[in-house]
Amino acid sequence: MGINRLSKLRPVIAQQGLDALLVSKTENCRYLSGFSGEGHLLISPDRAVLAADFRYLEQAKKEAPDFNIARTKGDLAQWLPRLTSEFGWRKLGFEANTLTFAAYGQLNEKITAEKIKLELVPTTNLVENLRSVKEKRELKLITKAVELTDAAFIRAKSGIRPGITEKQAAWEIEKYLREGGSDGIAFDVIVASGPNSALPHAKPTERVIRPGEPVIIDMGARLDGYCSDFSRTLFFGKPDKTFVAIYNIVLKAQLTAIGEIRTGMKASEADQLARDIIEQAGYGNAFGHGLGHGVGLEVHESPAIGPASQDSLADGMVFTLEPGIYIPGWGGVRIEDMVSLKEGRVRVLTGTEKEMEVIK
Amino acid sequence: MGINRLSKLRPVIAQQGLDALLVSKTENCRYLSGFSGEGHLLISPDRAVLAADFRYLEQAKKEAPDFNIARTKGDLAQWLPRLTSEFGWRKLGFEANTLTFAAYGQLNEKITAEKIKLELVPTTNLVENLRSVKEKRELKLITKAVELTDAAFIRAKSGIRPGITEKQAAWEIEKYLREGGSDGIAFDVIVASGPNSALPHAKPTERVIRPGEPVIIDMGARLDGYCSDFSRTLFFGKPDKTFVAIYNIVLKAQLTAIGEIRTGMKASEADQLARDIIEQAGYGNAFGHGLGHGVGLEVHESPAIGPASQDSLADGMVFTLEPGIYIPGWGGVRIEDMVSLKEGRVRVLTGTEKEMEVIK
Repeated sequence: MGINRLSKLRPVIAQQGLDALLVSKTENCRYLSGFSGEGHLLISPDRAVLAADFRYLEQAKKEAPDFNIARTKGDLAQWLPRLTSEFGWRKLGFEANTLTFAAYGQLNEKITAEKIKLELVPTTNLVENLRSVKEKRELKLITKAVELTDAAFIRAKSGIRPGITEKQAAWEIEKYLREGGSDGIAFDVIVASGPNSALPHAKPTERVIRPGEPVIIDMGARLDGYCSDFSRTLFFGKPDKTFVAIYNIVLKAQLTAIGEIRTGMKASEADQLARDIIEQAGYGNAFGHGLGHGVGLEVHESPAIGPASQDSLADGMVFTLEPGIYIPGWGGVRIEDMVSLKEGRVRVLTGTEKEMEVIK
Repeated sequence: MGINRLSKLRPVIAQQGLDALLVSKTENCRYLSGFSGEGHLLISPDRAVLAADFRYLEQAKKEAPDFNIARTKGDLAQWLPRLTSEFGWRKLGFEANTLTFAAYGQLNEKITAEKIKLELVPTTNLVENLRSVKEKRELKLITKAVELTDAAFIRAKSGIRPGITEKQAAWEIEKYLREGGSDGIAFDVIVASGPNSALPHAKPTERVIRPGEPVIIDMGARLDGYCSDFSRTLFFGKPDKTFVAIYNIVLKAQLTAIGEIRTGMKASEADQLARDIIEQAGYGNAFGHGLGHGVGLEVHESPAIGPASQDSLADGMVFTLEPGIYIPGWGGVRIEDMVSLKEGRVRVLTGTEKEMEVIK
């Protein structure tokens, strides 16, 4: 696994004119090495080093057999310059979206103070870009995580009823996920009822779920590090006209995106497909987030699917499609599936139905 | 709450010669404003602004009533320079340990491109230092989180038996915590048995717990954002000589620290009190982590209690005391309590006993 991915990364490092790359982001380290603890990788054309401190040495040896393990002590600045000198590297890339300003500053100070000839070069998304297109093995794990989510939602639908609080419902869902085989959860389960469902990132509260209002459920499983992400909006009792109208607009927006997104399309165009439907229905201002986001070792990763995205869509990418309409004071509707791109078109991974149901 | 803490922070900002401070770290934002979502704060002598995007606006208004809410769109670089110009600020502090190199770079580029007169000044630990000394209200929440942990451990001890896997045991413990009233868990529960207990940050595996080996349990509750942290080492069956000897060294190290740590001491001296005992017993190299760490809104926060720490201990601080001995291939022993400093001395918050027990 690790070696195959390294062979994809090494030409990218060379292309940037770098002698080596310092990988600091946890998920990138895991992707390249298998190591799931805290540490850094150093990748050059002929070296693959995993640097970790005492606490993670045993785990590093177990999880990353293809890497040489370097035992570190203290901050990056205390061990990195010595190591790069030893390896004879002059130009080292680092992950500018992960390394903090302080860590960079300390490193630079040390290099200057010790007159080490090392140029630090900011890079962005070198590993993330590789990660955005999934291998078969990854797609399999993600599909399993999606199936766990579908199964947990079936149990949730029969278990969640008006009269229990959002927090109780969220905990029930988490138990369904975890006891159904999920290693953990991809993110804190959201159960947002009534006006709370107008908050796209609501946290479950002590509010009691009542009939006659929207209830957004947003949940995800995790399997061997890989995430799923899924939302449905329930309504207990007979839906009123507003809910029916809004639900159908959101559903139409999502189905349109599923039907019309193509490999090669700009992610911003993909977003616009769904946004057009919502804008035409007069709710453009009520859809304040992007249409979707990549999912893998992180629950939010590349590609970003939104109006300002610079990404393009490629076969093998896995992402969510989750249009929503949010009306402060009333509530919201969101419908979210996981999909992959295969042979040019969208393939829906989520198995749960999404037609509006009347739950008595 | 917010206003009281702001009145402590404002003189610190002035002392640094800053017009204002940009607060980006989630826990610092929560501490100062009450807001628990994603966003930034801007604090000056006469302003308290919470900047958040669409997704968090409703939550921001609810949770941070003392703050003016600024709606943002896009990256920091897209909205911050305009806002600081509007407020007439020339010298803005930022949190160098939180802001990434990339975010800083984009901000700087924007300021230069638009010829905005704004100096960005790196700061470290301005809010963290305030947070390290707890208010009564905070100590109360932490104490409750510690009590939840004690109660869950009693249930765990009667529920965990040889024959179940580490993962099963960890999930049982998590359920005890969550169903006992914890809002969530402070960190993933660790159950590490046999040789796995030699890894201070082990993740629970499918390994079946057996009699005749050490089992380290490390767990923490969370209440209104505040964490607890707690470890015990169990042994099912009659402990062998090695275990008895190592257990008693670790226990003696911890009791020595509890008895001899004083307010005003350097954190590195506090660490040495326990380390001396372990070194004298010949296990100095087997205690590879610090003696403890502050606990609050983060499970690891200021003060750091280790050989390289620059911190000093003050009344009102809350931290762990958790010496350990780890022998690769055999296993480990760790005993961890939460304590606070009051009137110069250590007050143990954890209620669970720690004498070695023979569990049949």
